[in-house]
Amino acid sequence: MKVYLDNSATTKPYKEVIEEVSNVMESNWGNPSSAHELGYNAHKKLKECREKISGFINCDSSEIVFTSGGTEGNNLCIKGIVQPGNHIITSNIEHPSVKNTVEFLKKNGCEVTVLNVNEKGLITIEELNSAIKDNTVLLTVMHMNNELGILQDLESIGEYLKVNHKRVKFHVDAVQSFCKHEIDVKRMKIDMLTTSAHKHHGPRGVGFAYIRKELSPKQLIHGSAQEKGFRAGTENLYSIAGMVKAAEIMHGCMDENKRKVTGLKKYCIDQLTTRISGIRINSEICESISPYVLNVSIDGTPSEVMVRVMSDKGVYISKGSACSSKTESASHVLEAMKLTESEIKGTIRISFCEGNTLKELDYAIDKFLEAVKFLRRLKI
Amino acid sequence: MKVYLDNSATTKPYKEVIEEVSNVMESNWGNPSSAHELGYNAHKKLKECREKISGFINCDSSEIVFTSGGTEGNNLCIKGIVQPGNHIITSNIEHPSVKNTVEFLKKNGCEVTVLNVNEKGLITIEELNSAIKDNTVLLTVMHMNNELGILQDLESIGEYLKVNHKRVKFHVDAVQSFCKHEIDVKRMKIDMLTTSAHKHHGPRGVGFAYIRKELSPKQLIHGSAQEKGFRAGTENLYSIAGMVKAAEIMHGCMDENKRKVTGLKKYCIDQLTTRISGIRINSEICESISPYVLNVSIDGTPSEVMVRVMSDKGVYISKGSACSSKTESASHVLEAMKLTESEIKGTIRISFCEGNTLKELDYAIDKFLEAVKFLRRLKI
Repeated sequence: MKVYLDNSATTKPYKEVIEEVSNVMESNWGNPSSAHELGYNAHKKLKECREKISGFINCDSSEIVFTSGGTEGNNLCIKGIVQPGNHIITSNIEHPSVKNTVEFLKKNGCEVTVLNVNEKGLITIEELNSAIKDNTVLLTVMHMNNELGILQDLESIGEYLKVNHKRVKFHVDAVQSFCKHEIDVKRMKIDMLTTSAHKHHGPRGVGFAYIRKELSPKQLIHGSAQEKGFRAGTENLYSIAGMVKAAEIMHGCMDENKRKVTGLKKYCIDQLTTRISGIRINSEICESISPYVLNVSIDGTPSEVMVRVMSDKGVYISKGSACSSKTESASHVLEAMKLTESEIKGTIRISFCEGNTLKELDYAIDKFLEAVKFLRRLKI
Repeated sequence: MKVYLDNSATTKPYKEVIEEVSNVMESNWGNPSSAHELGYNAHKKLKECREKISGFINCDSSEIVFTSGGTEGNNLCIKGIVQPGNHIITSNIEHPSVKNTVEFLKKNGCEVTVLNVNEKGLITIEELNSAIKDNTVLLTVMHMNNELGILQDLESIGEYLKVNHKRVKFHVDAVQSFCKHEIDVKRMKIDMLTTSAHKHHGPRGVGFAYIRKELSPKQLIHGSAQEKGFRAGTENLYSIAGMVKAAEIMHGCMDENKRKVTGLKKYCIDQLTTRISGIRINSEICESISPYVLNVSIDGTPSEVMVRVMSDKGVYISKGSACSSKTESASHVLEAMKLTESEIKGTIRISFCEGNTLKELDYAIDKFLEAVKFLRRLKI
């Protein structure tokens, strides 16, 4: 049996997505900028995709900019909106595509405040309030954290900013949450938002950024006038269509999926805590943590080794985020959550999708038990 | 009958490419950064792709950086290598992704010299020599022009720079030429080179940049450490594999393809010049012009209208490049070639692929005749 429990790293594309990508490659491969029939057909399909996507986050289709994925989207929104001398606020649990972009800007003349999250992993309005200065132009935070599943309260943050500091733009990295948790950019008063299709059973190398009408971020990629001039390059219609297909499927059963994975997570927590001693649950079931992610620390089982031992048994998990899983540095997110060094050392991430089954979990949990026994005996 | 003669805008993906993309989506969808079996499988495939691609341009596989396409590649190579105060040299027939990137840099503290091409559309060593200054760091030119098919003599340019001005880096936009004309970065002494898969029957939204080992361009997109830190973002393995498949097929029959399209172009020129009066061939058959592109000016037939009329008849051509075909400005490339305003007004681009047939051309030429008669009678 093979059990994939690393859905925060990437997801298996849906069959319907693979079919859609193939169909568009086969029958609608014109350049949307071409002034002939094939160009118009491609342009029309692109327009439809833009309209459908905008419906999922409650924005206007003209506010959607297709990108090559979440990392590019985060770079576009953040770099696009700031100038040297500006002040940026972010949190200490961001993805490297935000963290390193902000660090780059800091080296290039921007001021940066990194908010410490509270014991629940949340940004507080108090901390945010005291961080805002006269030159603050941007708050960038992720909706759902990739290592722990923590869900920021976007509505409160957006409301606070709009009422008290209207000039501070609100950017949300929604790469992990889009299609899993509801996003309404109007209600949440979000100015810019970033997604990536391969995190929600879509193709790789594609995503979108929502950029509120009134904003004009500087281009990251210069060239022709595609995407209203915000993002040059021939539009990747095949993958965009695949992304839309995946988002349509997931939005059709978002609540049902959430119930399903909540059940899986609950079962997993019950089994692991009952059957394994010295285990700490770092992402409980609660409103401010996504059911899609279960992060646990297990005493005496170094996570790098655990991931490999489990892989040999056909169970695929992660030590933290895939993006940093090959580097040896400790997770800045877990450090921010004040886990001890030894807890961090034994931390693994189990991330679900709605397709996982209890039978898969039973298999995986048996393998966990074997692995823990084996590794504790070895005392690595 | 439908005849696609706009292969410089984009190409129909090969069946084998569509299959490869589907297969990788189906069976090798792990995140190459994941430390488990699925990650390793993806990482292995990515490594194979890198090795195959490097073979096509005679570089080391460590010198390949996968990108989201030609526009991003050009931005990465050009912006990555220059600082304010540096001097950049380019030509007056570049694609917008180079032209606008260089203009952006000019506004941000770089000096720029735009070389005028000669009557054949070629950069001359004399012009280049007199443009070089003490602060020159980069020459960026396209291998094959997208509107006229002009092929720069990369070997002479590269040799000249390496012998006389070693510090001036040589970047080549090879988006139109890769898989059509031979590229050997060692022999041609190229430092950086950019390609895009959808121009050679590969998928959209993917390409690669060759960056010589000794160079370290600044990142355009910050984030995790993918692509040796040059380009963050989860690797788009599906599309990369499709790109490699397309390049393999085309490289297997590059000479044969060239012979085939030379025959098509010759036939087209013969028929058009014999049967239509007031026609000017802007891209003859000769060594410094690619056989893949035929650019002609036809008296009394505005190209925008011509493209639409031909589209209605099922023949797909372009007025210039697709990238600027929806804007009304005259082609800077045709202006650089000193075509008169009325010649530019009647200019169309017919661009072939090896799959086009004489039967298709006979059909297209008949439709050209009808269109020219119709438009001249209308006197638009």
